[in-house]
Amino acid sequence: MSVLAVGSVGYDTVFTPDASATNVLGGSLTFFSIAASCFTQVAIVGVVGEDFREEDRVLLDNHGIDASGLKTVNGRTFRWSGRYSSEDANLRETLDLQLNVSDGFTPTLTREQRRADYLFLANSDPALQLHVLSQMDARPKLVAADTIDVWIQGKRDVLAEVLKRVDVVFMDQGEVRAFAQESNLLRAAGVILNMGPTAVIAKRGEYGALMLTGDAVFVAPAFPLERVVDPTGAGDTFAGGFMGCLAAAGDLSPGAFRRALVLGSVMGSFVVEEFSVGRLASITYSQLVERFNAFIDITRFDGLKPGETLPWRKGNDARREAHIRSN
Amino acid sequence: MSVLAVGSVGYDTVFTPDASATNVLGGSLTFFSIAASCFTQVAIVGVVGEDFREEDRVLLDNHGIDASGLKTVNGRTFRWSGRYSSEDANLRETLDLQLNVSDGFTPTLTREQRRADYLFLANSDPALQLHVLSQMDARPKLVAADTIDVWIQGKRDVLAEVLKRVDVVFMDQGEVRAFAQESNLLRAAGVILNMGPTAVIAKRGEYGALMLTGDAVFVAPAFPLERVVDPTGAGDTFAGGFMGCLAAAGDLSPGAFRRALVLGSVMGSFVVEEFSVGRLASITYSQLVERFNAFIDITRFDGLKPGETLPWRKGNDARREAHIRSN
Repeated sequence: MSVLAVGSVGYDTVFTPDASATNVLGGSLTFFSIAASCFTQVAIVGVVGEDFREEDRVLLDNHGIDASGLKTVNGRTFRWSGRYSSEDANLRETLDLQLNVSDGFTPTLTREQRRADYLFLANSDPALQLHVLSQMDARPKLVAADTIDVWIQGKRDVLAEVLKRVDVVFMDQGEVRAFAQESNLLRAAGVILNMGPTAVIAKRGEYGALMLTGDAVFVAPAFPLERVVDPTGAGDTFAGGFMGCLAAAGDLSPGAFRRALVLGSVMGSFVVEEFSVGRLASITYSQLVERFNAFIDITRFDGLKPGETLPWRKGNDARREAHIRSN
Repeated sequence: MSVLAVGSVGYDTVFTPDASATNVLGGSLTFFSIAASCFTQVAIVGVVGEDFREEDRVLLDNHGIDASGLKTVNGRTFRWSGRYSSEDANLRETLDLQLNVSDGFTPTLTREQRRADYLFLANSDPALQLHVLSQMDARPKLVAADTIDVWIQGKRDVLAEVLKRVDVVFMDQGEVRAFAQESNLLRAAGVILNMGPTAVIAKRGEYGALMLTGDAVFVAPAFPLERVVDPTGAGDTFAGGFMGCLAAAGDLSPGAFRRALVLGSVMGSFVVEEFSVGRLASITYSQLVERFNAFIDITRFDGLKPGETLPWRKGNDARREAHIRSN
């Protein structure tokens, strides 16, 4: 099954404590689509300026991404510049943001795009996300949306409309708390779940992600790395791995959601190893399997075998129970 | 097998965003020993003042804890007061600290205590930790130590001596980074591992813990809770569950370490549900098993079955490989 993604393509200038990269390929669509393209067919809808480099179109094409929906218009491509904290890699400061040709971009989907089975609405104005949703011929099998604090603060009601019409919402954990106006993450995710989605995925940066679906919680760590070069794009790569994996398997069961989340996390662990898509663009199947198995290895522990019990100091129970009763 | 623990017993006054508790039973030994006593015999060595309440001795006794090593001396019991941030429950501010009778406390172990198989050195001056270690008749089967930033900054060399002589070290992740002078957590834990311990356990508060043993990494989340009342004592409870479980099983295999870490995390998830030891003191075996199984449930996902493959867009490989070769 193919995935349609609507979002931004741009050029990033990134400063990390150890290095920097200037005008490198970025944007939510870039990270999302390259990650998803490892698993399934992806088509993207977005806009770039006349300065968009031919080599970057070639890169998307080399990944079999249908970029016919990536329009080139007069003007400059979206640009973002940011600096990561040396204290906490989860913190970043935006140094510069130029919407350029993305300002006021209103996509019109083709007849084929309107029939996509899997739709990803990357972070953007929720009004634009609604505009895309309203063009779909039928409800896709799965719609996922990402958003950030600026819309939570500035367009809360429109975002609430989006949430009524999506299956999966991705937010940073702080945004989950802020949107729900609830400091406890589990309860905050529960508030959002009640607004429409069937899954709320709280991204926790270097700590992984927490997914709430109905009453079930799934918590996955991030894959620990000895060297993180640039966290930019990790969230979109994670979403791309997640959606690509679900669409490829054509399975929306709880178990499939969990594996998709882990594979999203695995994809995210690759992208941060180099600036831009340097590492993401060169993942091979054997590397994917190797890291998936390593992910299992770092998280697995033995549950109870049939008939096995946990250690417990039985002789203590009577005294403890007396204590419980007396209090 | 029994566990000997050396540390502090005191009275805490705690302010959380929603509530407060005044002069409630606390201290590393209290949390550690009650947690460990669920699994195995525990003896504690510490000091309290004349104001130590009889009901608190009874509580320890009700848990079958050998508190004959908890000396009462002239003066007041250790007191700590702190406030938790409403923004980030992992952050707390110390409002008041009175060492009182703990100031200058130098324990002398009895002949029986010198033969303990499992020894836990709770956070204290590393010189005191060394003093205890030097009294042991033989190397225990397992020695674990906890420490905090004040010793990392003020007594780095003495702490390094302690690390040469322990098997397991517990530190908050920020302390692991600070002590190793390395911002990457995995590499920082590796630096400390090279100083002597066979396991470095980096505590990550609400995100759980990361354990490095040789080349193997184990990452476990904290059990997500809808309501956290008071995080005080979570680290010592975690250590108590870990050590108690290892000592009870008498198994120091990698698998036993992993399960002990998970059970430590499970114990930690109980203690934060009430102030002081309100919840910790009343855990039953069935509650422990229930939460252990819930912990499995929130972390489990399917690995690859024999012959199964991950989704992968095969048709893409040739183009991707061409891309990789050309870059």
